Amino acid sequence: MTILRQTMKEIAKFIERTADILDESQISDFLNILVNANKNRNKILIVGAGRSALVGKAFAMRLMHLDFDVYVMGETITPPVRKDDVIIAVSGSGRTQIVLTAASAARKMGAHIIAITSFRDSPLARISDHVVIIPGRTKIAREADYFTRQILGIYEPLAPLGTLFEDTTMAFFDGVIVTLMKKLNITEEDMKNRHANVEYIG
Amino acid sequence: MTILRQTMKEIAKFIERTADILDESQISDFLNILVNANKNRNKILIVGAGRSALVGKAFAMRLMHLDFDVYVMGETITPPVRKDDVIIAVSGSGRTQIVLTAASAARKMGAHIIAITSFRDSPLARISDHVVIIPGRTKIAREADYFTRQILGIYEPLAPLGTLFEDTTMAFFDGVIVTLMKKLNITEEDMKNRHANVEYIG
Amino acid sequence: MTILRQTMKEIAKFIERTADILDESQISDFLNILVNANKNRNKILIVGAGRSALVGKAFAMRLMHLDFDVYVMGETITPPVRKDDVIIAVSGSGRTQIVLTAASAARKMGAHIIAITSFRDSPLARISDHVVIIPGRTKIAREADYFTRQILGIYEPLAPLGTLFEDTTMAFFDGVIVTLMKKLNITEEDMKNRHANVEYIG
Amino acid sequence: MTILRQTMKEIAKFIERTADILDESQISDFLNILVNANKNRNKILIVGAGRSALVGKAFAMRLMHLDFDVYVMGETITPPVRKDDVIIAVSGSGRTQIVLTAASAARKMGAHIIAITSFRDSPLARISDHVVIIPGRTKIAREADYFTRQILGIYEPLAPLGTLFEDTTMAFFDGVIVTLMKKLNITEEDMKNRHANVEYIG
Repeated sequence: MTILRQTMKEIAKFIERTADILDESQISDFLNILVNANKNRNKILIVGAGRSALVGKAFAMRLMHLDFDVYVMGETITPPVRKDDVIIAVSGSGRTQIVLTAASAARKMGAHIIAITSFRDSPLARISDHVVIIPGRTKIAREADYFTRQILGIYEPLAPLGTLFEDTTMAFFDGVIVTLMKKLNITEEDMKNRHANVEYIG
Repeated sequence: MTILRQTMKEIAKFIERTADILDESQISDFLNILVNANKNRNKILIVGAGRSALVGKAFAMRLMHLDFDVYVMGETITPPVRKDDVIIAVSGSGRTQIVLTAASAARKMGAHIIAITSFRDSPLARISDHVVIIPGRTKIAREADYFTRQILGIYEPLAPLGTLFEDTTMAFFDGVIVTLMKKLNITEEDMKNRHANVEYIG
Repeated sequence: MTILRQTMKEIAKFIERTADILDESQISDFLNILVNANKNRNKILIVGAGRSALVGKAFAMRLMHLDFDVYVMGETITPPVRKDDVIIAVSGSGRTQIVLTAASAARKMGAHIIAITSFRDSPLARISDHVVIIPGRTKIAREADYFTRQILGIYEPLAPLGTLFEDTTMAFFDGVIVTLMKKLNITEEDMKNRHANVEYIG
Repeated sequence: MTILRQTMKEIAKFIERTADILDESQISDFLNILVNANKNRNKILIVGAGRSALVGKAFAMRLMHLDFDVYVMGETITPPVRKDDVIIAVSGSGRTQIVLTAASAARKMGAHIIAITSFRDSPLARISDHVVIIPGRTKIAREADYFTRQILGIYEPLAPLGTLFEDTTMAFFDGVIVTLMKKLNITEEDMKNRHANVEYIG
């Protein structure tokens, strides 16, 4: 089997096993916060850097399709954070400085900070109100969190740097979207109607 | 005088003279459309490419500070365009393909298209419902619209390519913002309160 | 099992099965084009819209870590496309207008167009020099390509809209990166040294 | 005269007067650093937030047209900062936290930090190797630097928040571009050939 197919299967397996070991109370807290933000029209702000920011943006697009009031740090029309807004800070290592800076500032405004990270003891996790642990290695190659070691064992993964965290977080966020569809009674057709159109139509 | 100071003065003079020759009915139509969009909570979508897109984004930020429902094509949370939404398409030459494609698609949705361009006979101006002519040269160096020639005469400007259009459009949009502040009775302090904060606070 | 875990496993299974049915000659052509672009220092331009653009950007970051001369359409420092440059156009449906517009323009410049799409008969696939078929449904909910039906059968997936295409393309691109690491003899440590730093360091 | 025309003239006058009071040695240091970066192929990284970031991006596009190796913090293909790279940090107040965080990190890498700001005593100016003072007010409405007061006197400007700083910095950067064209012997036609094309051509 080629390395390409092998890597895709490694990523798939990592996502599948993560689905089994995700912490139930972390997930239900995260979902409750999102449902409440939707009900109370509180803003959600996605914060991240690099590929984690891209995964966060992919989540933000789908939250918009579900009619959430969602924004992304660094884009043009991002409004100020206020009390009771929700910050979703994505950082595998939990040490990305720009994410820490923004999360700290948001905390001072009275926002709820949710960390999506591999490391429960990271600086980001420590300043957050809620944490969802998604396994994966950090940029410091060999360093791995507890759950990542549980999944990988002594096996050295093919996927470099933060890849396993990023791809697994993408699948996790998409699982959150499907759950919210059911909870909020929103169909795929409803979402299609809230999808951007001017870039797509000829 | 250094070339740097000379260029800044050329840009300043171009903005100043443009302020005198802007068409009054084009301006008042544009302002009325914006005030109505604000009153009826219609979306405004900014469309542009290159430096024109950046000038459009700077305008979008200020419209957000004035509490408009404004978005930028190509960013994460851009919603679909619907009937009665307003498209502000910025293109000096009026020939930027990606802008034409998006404006045509938006037109099919029943949106109002406003072209900000130097060329009244350009493809963009022709498919738009309203046009605001801002002078400036195009990327095709020597080519200039009627008003640009009126301002520059036989003088070959120092500022290259679309610079005069872009900088003058920036100042024009900022003039629109001040006019809207008065019309909507919004103070600088109100705007400051709607300014993004997490990137700014330590 | 919760819907969230179920969706993650559905995505994982879809990635895993796609790894088995990917076309060998499509993959090896794609890899050869990338290796040659790297050797000859030809530019690579990533083109996409919405979540497909985000997946393309995640790929672009890793190509940069492998020292490719790679750019993304719509960002600040994107240079012009020239003869022999490589365009990677990502669109599940193969019908995204803005992607078609850019791919056609690039084709006129003599660039090589590679389509990453689910539909072999789509407009994008037809104007491309090379195609890599990644299964997934389109935004038109029930519509599915041949391979997607092969994977899903009569099963209606939980993941909405283009999710399966986007997440599978993410994993596919990461498989391409690992393959290129081996082919170009680049280590994870080398990649870490080409990773952006100012946003990460305290 | 309408408020719109009045505001445009205010901005034009502010740019014109700034052209007179810019510090000669600050300008020549800035130009020398840029010419050296070009000669030695050192990277230039533009750092900013909000409208200052947009003005910085407009400058980055033109530097690219002049064949500089220039990048923007936060975009997809931004490489790591190394010793002798040049950071251009744009912040009217000199207090934007995210800019300070990035500039400090870059300083630790041995990069040269250039602050474009209104306030000589700001935190940003203090951690920078070189400063170019561009007048303008800060987001804290009434607060103004020495030069801004010199230009405006007791007059309360129409343009809100950081507008005068942003528009004047845009014109200043465009003046820098024209100066570099002469110093590096680059024509408008050369620049046109390095301009992005796939978004423009039909």
